[in-house]
Amino acid sequence: MTPINPDQLLDALNWRYATKAFDPNKKIPADTWSALEESLVLTPSSFGLQPWKFLVITDKPLRESLVPHAWSQRQIADCSHLVVMLAKKTVGEPDIDKLIHRMVEVRGGTADALAAYKGMMMGSLAQAPPEFIVDWAKKQTYIALGQFMGAAAALGIDTCPMEGFVASKFDEILGLNSADYTTAVLCPAGYRSADDKYATLPKVRYQAEDVIEHR
Amino acid sequence: MTPINPDQLLDALNWRYATKAFDPNKKIPADTWSALEESLVLTPSSFGLQPWKFLVITDKPLRESLVPHAWSQRQIADCSHLVVMLAKKTVGEPDIDKLIHRMVEVRGGTADALAAYKGMMMGSLAQAPPEFIVDWAKKQTYIALGQFMGAAAALGIDTCPMEGFVASKFDEILGLNSADYTTAVLCPAGYRSADDKYATLPKVRYQAEDVIEHR
Repeated sequence: MTPINPDQLLDALNWRYATKAFDPNKKIPADTWSALEESLVLTPSSFGLQPWKFLVITDKPLRESLVPHAWSQRQIADCSHLVVMLAKKTVGEPDIDKLIHRMVEVRGGTADALAAYKGMMMGSLAQAPPEFIVDWAKKQTYIALGQFMGAAAALGIDTCPMEGFVASKFDEILGLNSADYTTAVLCPAGYRSADDKYATLPKVRYQAEDVIEHR
Repeated sequence: MTPINPDQLLDALNWRYATKAFDPNKKIPADTWSALEESLVLTPSSFGLQPWKFLVITDKPLRESLVPHAWSQRQIADCSHLVVMLAKKTVGEPDIDKLIHRMVEVRGGTADALAAYKGMMMGSLAQAPPEFIVDWAKKQTYIALGQFMGAAAALGIDTCPMEGFVASKFDEILGLNSADYTTAVLCPAGYRSADDKYATLPKVRYQAEDVIEHR
């Protein structure tokens, strides 16, 4: 693995901004999008449980139908690819067994050899109240969100993280009402419009000394 | 901004793993660490409110004192730089005014011109119950976590995300009990030990078709 240099990283993160207007005519090329989907798959999660799904929505009418339930923000419809990040609402023994099974499939060995790992996950999650689980799963989707936005910036792709939406309406329109998942957070991706005046505004961050403390 | 190529991104994300054993003798060079701190500062957050602080702990005795409260995981003490991500426990008008002030400082204009933006933040957050706020702030720190781990991997730095710790003990030892912040998540960073057998195990992820759905 050849590391990039620190300046290249900071260039990408400084270039990134919460894109307010996407160019609706520009689509992300297939190979670039495929790498970004792979980056979602590779997202780290607690215990490796991956308590999520990522809906990638390109269908225009479906996206238009979501706009009113996302504070009418046009990024939903105008971006190239809309990623709807879903969090799992429950985590029980079947989910934990599914991971154990996948570990054995990928790494070899036996499920029995992973009994202690299973016990640790059962102890942490299987008895936790439902509100804790969905909340924990949503946090995991925010890891995906953070890594995805950074990865996209590194590839020259614009994104806009969005918490401003009505989750119950999204769940209804996306047919999740009887599913194990709920809408956690949104991330439209694509290319900034030449008209987006936010693209050139200086980034607003607190000074490093206000948010970083050395001990 | 010169984008990196998709293969370089995937190489870095595949190289990354949750490092179980750090080499305690290897320290991250100052220029690399400085870029990683800057990446933390640049993390996107909801409304741009940055409801966080990042403690960067290099003091060895302090780290050793935290180990027992993090399931005795040695990464806490053996990594090069331990990042403790803190979430703000409350968000009220003073926090919102502080952001407005910073926006004016960085971009010019007046606070009055940002009244609608302030109103939106007040409506979303200032009346929300305390449990909602701390939880929302913790989610924001997970964006930082996701971006930080990706950025570190791109620079050839190992990390290990950690949720397994006793937050009340961390808060106590770090002197946060009367502070506005609480420990949300940990991320040791440094270099993998040559002995870490986890470094060469195949990565366990579900198949793309199990976690990504196209609509």
